[in-house]
Amino acid sequence: MSRVITISREFGSGGRELGRKLAEELKIGYYDSEILVQLVERTSFTERYIQEMEDNPPYPIFPITIGKTFLHTNDVNFQQAQTVFKAQSRIIRELADKADCVIVGRCADYVLREYHPYRFFVYADVESKIKRCRERESGLSEEEIVRQLKRIDKSRSKYYAYHTDQQWGDKLNYDLCVNTSNTDIQDFASSFSQFFFNSKQTVAPIE
Amino acid sequence: MSRVITISREFGSGGRELGRKLAEELKIGYYDSEILVQLVERTSFTERYIQEMEDNPPYPIFPITIGKTFLHTNDVNFQQAQTVFKAQSRIIRELADKADCVIVGRCADYVLREYHPYRFFVYADVESKIKRCRERESGLSEEEIVRQLKRIDKSRSKYYAYHTDQQWGDKLNYDLCVNTSNTDIQDFASSFSQFFFNSKQTVAPIE
Repeated sequence: MSRVITISREFGSGGRELGRKLAEELKIGYYDSEILVQLVERTSFTERYIQEMEDNPPYPIFPITIGKTFLHTNDVNFQQAQTVFKAQSRIIRELADKADCVIVGRCADYVLREYHPYRFFVYADVESKIKRCRERESGLSEEEIVRQLKRIDKSRSKYYAYHTDQQWGDKLNYDLCVNTSNTDIQDFASSFSQFFFNSKQTVAPIE
Repeated sequence: MSRVITISREFGSGGRELGRKLAEELKIGYYDSEILVQLVERTSFTERYIQEMEDNPPYPIFPITIGKTFLHTNDVNFQQAQTVFKAQSRIIRELADKADCVIVGRCADYVLREYHPYRFFVYADVESKIKRCRERESGLSEEEIVRQLKRIDKSRSKYYAYHTDQQWGDKLNYDLCVNTSNTDIQDFASSFSQFFFNSKQTVAPIE
């Protein structure tokens, strides 16, 4: 019986940091780029190619339920993206089967919906996201950072909408939406881990 | 130096319960209908009249910043609603000045924006809200409950939009959005109160 926390997050909101700290507090696995490494091992694509596919998903605006039936069936990029998503979903399910863990991004909240994960959405106001990005990548101007924030979140939104037929960031798809603008992520993670330890409601048997 | 938690909530989501439990855990004041009682004392309106005004706000869809300048200046209902809102906001600020507390509804997140309160939005899926309402009011059919949920949330949304020029339920207006559908409210409140105790980020000097 595993318990999984999934983290969806706006770019620059500190979602990864929250995920890592939750995993540390709970002493459970944390999976983010590790999934990408496994994907490269299991498919014929390079890390760079997969990342480019994720950044510029070759999808129409229709969700998969519509797209699958009559669109793009002969488009190579589209087929490859589908192959990658399927392999990725298999890896995510294997990780969830193995042990309690935190999984960042990759529509894991949806891929694992039958496992009833605890689903986070992490967000922040633009000023906080700019500040966080500046701390990481000093080379970009404010204007460039804002463009980057918009571009990456647009990709994430499109990717999520396509694979899940749900709206990325819509509160109802998550159990907890955390605004990190004025929140100490370490304090939050340590209190939340207490809740996660105690709570019976979020435990769901897995297979 | 007071610290305030504000609770905005969808009808039937358990927001009041969460607010009460947070106040209990933190051993601080809890204000909800107490504000209404004070309002009746301070204005010439009855409790029933004020409640009716809140349920059916006599406002246009424009926010107050637009409405104030050229609309409704002679409309008695509108003027009365403004009087009530002003008196209510004064009471809310007085409560915040006095001591740490939890305040439910009444645009308190906006009224107290200079106090930097910790702002909750509490929501749930429709099935959970129906279940919660059924536990309270067994007389209504499912269809009637759904109508009630929609009607009350529509009023809250309109009231909030008018007075704050912000969108009710928009994640960015809150620090934490809690989906109570699969969450044990008592467990959550007790873990969160720990975070609130520890966290320095949410403390803000008042005045």
